[in-house]
Parts: sequence; C-alpha cells; structure tokens
Amino acid sequence: MGNGKFITFEGGEGCGKSTQVKRLKDALEAEGIEVVLTREPGGTWLAEQIRTLIKDQAEDPPCDRSELLLFLAARAQLVKTVIRPALEKGVWVISDRFSDSTLAYQGYGRGLPLEVIDIANTFACENLKPDLTLLLEVDPTVAAARLAGREQATNTTADRIERAGSEFHARLRRGFVELAKQEPWRIVPINANGTPDEVWNEVWKSLKRIR
Amino acid sequence: MGNGKFITFEGGEGCGKSTQVKRLKDALEAEGIEVVLTREPGGTWLAEQIRTLIKDQAEDPPCDRSELLLFLAARAQLVKTVIRPALEKGVWVISDRFSDSTLAYQGYGRGLPLEVIDIANTFACENLKPDLTLLLEVDPTVAAARLAGREQATNTTADRIERAGSEFHARLRRGFVELAKQEPWRIVPINANGTPDEVWNEVWKSLKRIR
Repeated sequence: MGNGKFITFEGGEGCGKSTQVKRLKDALEAEGIEVVLTREPGGTWLAEQIRTLIKDQAEDPPCDRSELLLFLAARAQLVKTVIRPALEKGVWVISDRFSDSTLAYQGYGRGLPLEVIDIANTFACENLKPDLTLLLEVDPTVAAARLAGREQATNTTADRIERAGSEFHARLRRGFVELAKQEPWRIVPINANGTPDEVWNEVWKSLKRIR
Repeated sequence: MGNGKFITFEGGEGCGKSTQVKRLKDALEAEGIEVVLTREPGGTWLAEQIRTLIKDQAEDPPCDRSELLLFLAARAQLVKTVIRPALEKGVWVISDRFSDSTLAYQGYGRGLPLEVIDIANTFACENLKPDLTLLLEVDPTVAAARLAGREQATNTTADRIERAGSEFHARLRRGFVELAKQEPWRIVPINANGTPDEVWNEVWKSLKRIR
C-alpha cells in the first residue's frame, strides 16, 4: 500500500456530507495532494448501474437482503478498481459513505444481522478500512428542513431509502453513534447542526489525526 | 411452508440442464402438479437486470467478489418474491441452477473462500435448501461439442463465464463432485453423457426420493 489516505464521510440523510466532501477535496488539493472523490453506491460504471437498481426503480424494488448484497457488490467493484489502485499510487480517496453506512442502514435500520453484514462487508472490501471516518451528526428537525430545502431547490423527490420513515432514520442514527463508540480511534463524531463554515472547521481540525 | 417441493438442476456448461428442466416440468404438470420454473441468475425483473450486469456487459465487468455478491443479490430477490411464495402455496419449483453453482463457480472455480460464500449464501436464501438437486455430470469433450453446436444453432457466442477457460471449468466440475459427496441425501449425480432420453430416465427415477 502506498501513502494515500482513505477518508470517509458518514451520517444520516440531510447531514450535509456532500458540501463537506467537496470542501475537503478543495482544501487538500490546495496543498498539492492528489484526491479522488467517490460516492456510494456508485463510483464505477457497474456500481452506478447497481445504484439505479437500488434507488430509482419501482418495477421490482430489492428486498432487504438483496439491497444489502447489491450495496456490497457495488463496493467490491469500487474498492478493487478505484480505491485500492488510487491509494497504492499515493492518491488520497474521499468517499461519500462507505462500510459504516451499510452497518447503520441495513443493520441497525433494517434489522439484518450485524455479524453477517460484517463478514460479507469485510469480504467485499478485502479488509480495507478507512484511515479516518467523519460522522456528521445532525438533529432530526435540522435534517428534515435541509432535505425539504434540497427537494425544492433541485426539484427532485426523495428516493426509496430517504423516504423510509422517521423510525427507520432514528434507528440508523443510533447505529452510527454505536459504531463510533466501537472504533473511537477511527470514527470522529462531528456536530453538524451549525453552518457549513462551522462544520468545516471541525472537519478540518479532525484531519490532524492522520497527518 | 406448504407442500411444494423445490428441485434444482446443477452442472457445468453444456451438461444439458435446460432440456431436462423442461422435460421435468412437463412430466410433473402431466400429473396435475403445478410447477414454477426459474433460472439463475434471473427469474424476477431485478434479477434479470443483475443477470445482464454479470453476463453481458464489457463496459465494467464485475471483479470476482462483485460477481459473487451480484449472484447472491439476485438469489435473495428470487427466493423472497418467487420461490418461497410458490412453495408456501404448494406449488413445486424447479430452478436451473441455485446455491451449488455459486459454491462451484465462485468458490472452487474462482477460488473465493468457501466459508464466506456459505455464510453469505445462507443469508441470501434465508436458509432455504432444495429438497432435491440433480447434478448432471458430463465429460469435458461432450460438453465442448454441445456448446459449439449451441453457438452454431442459435448464432450466439459464449458469455463471459462460459469463456472462462478449461482450467476454470475443470475446477468447478471437481467442485460439484465434492459438494455431492458432502450432501448425498440431497444431491444426486447423474451421468449426462448419453442421449436426452437416457438422461431423462435417470432424472425421472431420482424423483422417487422426494415423492
């Protein structure tokens, strides 16, 4: 493995990840670091096809187990063809979601067995773990307001998973908190209720852990 | 679970499964048994989309791990939305390939770890096992001649997995033999070098096990 660092952003819907992902990319590039951005599910041609099957079709929506396995299939391809080759060349990789989302959404959220998810996910990633994971935590009311704003601004509607209901979203938020407790050396919880600038200050400070 | 029986056909490329699957369906229906035919990967809208991603695209062919997880995602959906509901209504299900193919192709053939495949596959199927599995065994030279004949007759070319090379196909044949040894009460090896009629006689005889 080269010197590339692997950073992931995690959090529930409306936590403001996308904004911070872009800011971090710009800030690192301004220091001369080469950065690759990926998103999950997606990031390769195959993985983007899988994304469509998970999110955007009403013809035959995946059952819970199929959904989990599709996420992992997309991740396996992303790790193999994009993330590992980049890290081996010394490039930094920032991913908008990764393994923790699977444990939070499909494990804590949908109630699928965490041990099986962990085994299958470790297999899909060939044991790759992020060097640093930034968990953006936001209050449900703030998240709901942001999501409503996004739908209006972009004239889109929430996808199948975003619409899964407040009980589901409460469970997955608790899941993220649980995961952060289990690996405090890797996962940094960040209060994401503030303005983008306030959140960014916390994000940038937390980078010290891996530099 | 109702009274429906679940029968799977397994074997390497060119073993003559498809012919026997249809004959068995006709023979059972002639006795008044309701039968659903499925094929893997496939059998639901989602699973057929996944099939295309596995077999027919050169844009971004799945890596070994992604391929395995796609097969399992397709299977999870097929079990949940087609096979289990049918069995619960007392309908018989015949599937052209199922779990044993995954162990043979992705495990013995591609060399992925059998224990992980087994855990992930059991999860995908929610523990469903076939009542009877007919393993059609055919000599490599016979299989090659049949495949060549099929390509000519249908004016198609072999797909990505069919083209995987004779070493790969030798490994997966050995894998099927190994699986049959492990579960002799479920898997019946059938000599499939003969004519369709000869093979059919063996298939029909083996049905006595579950009737």
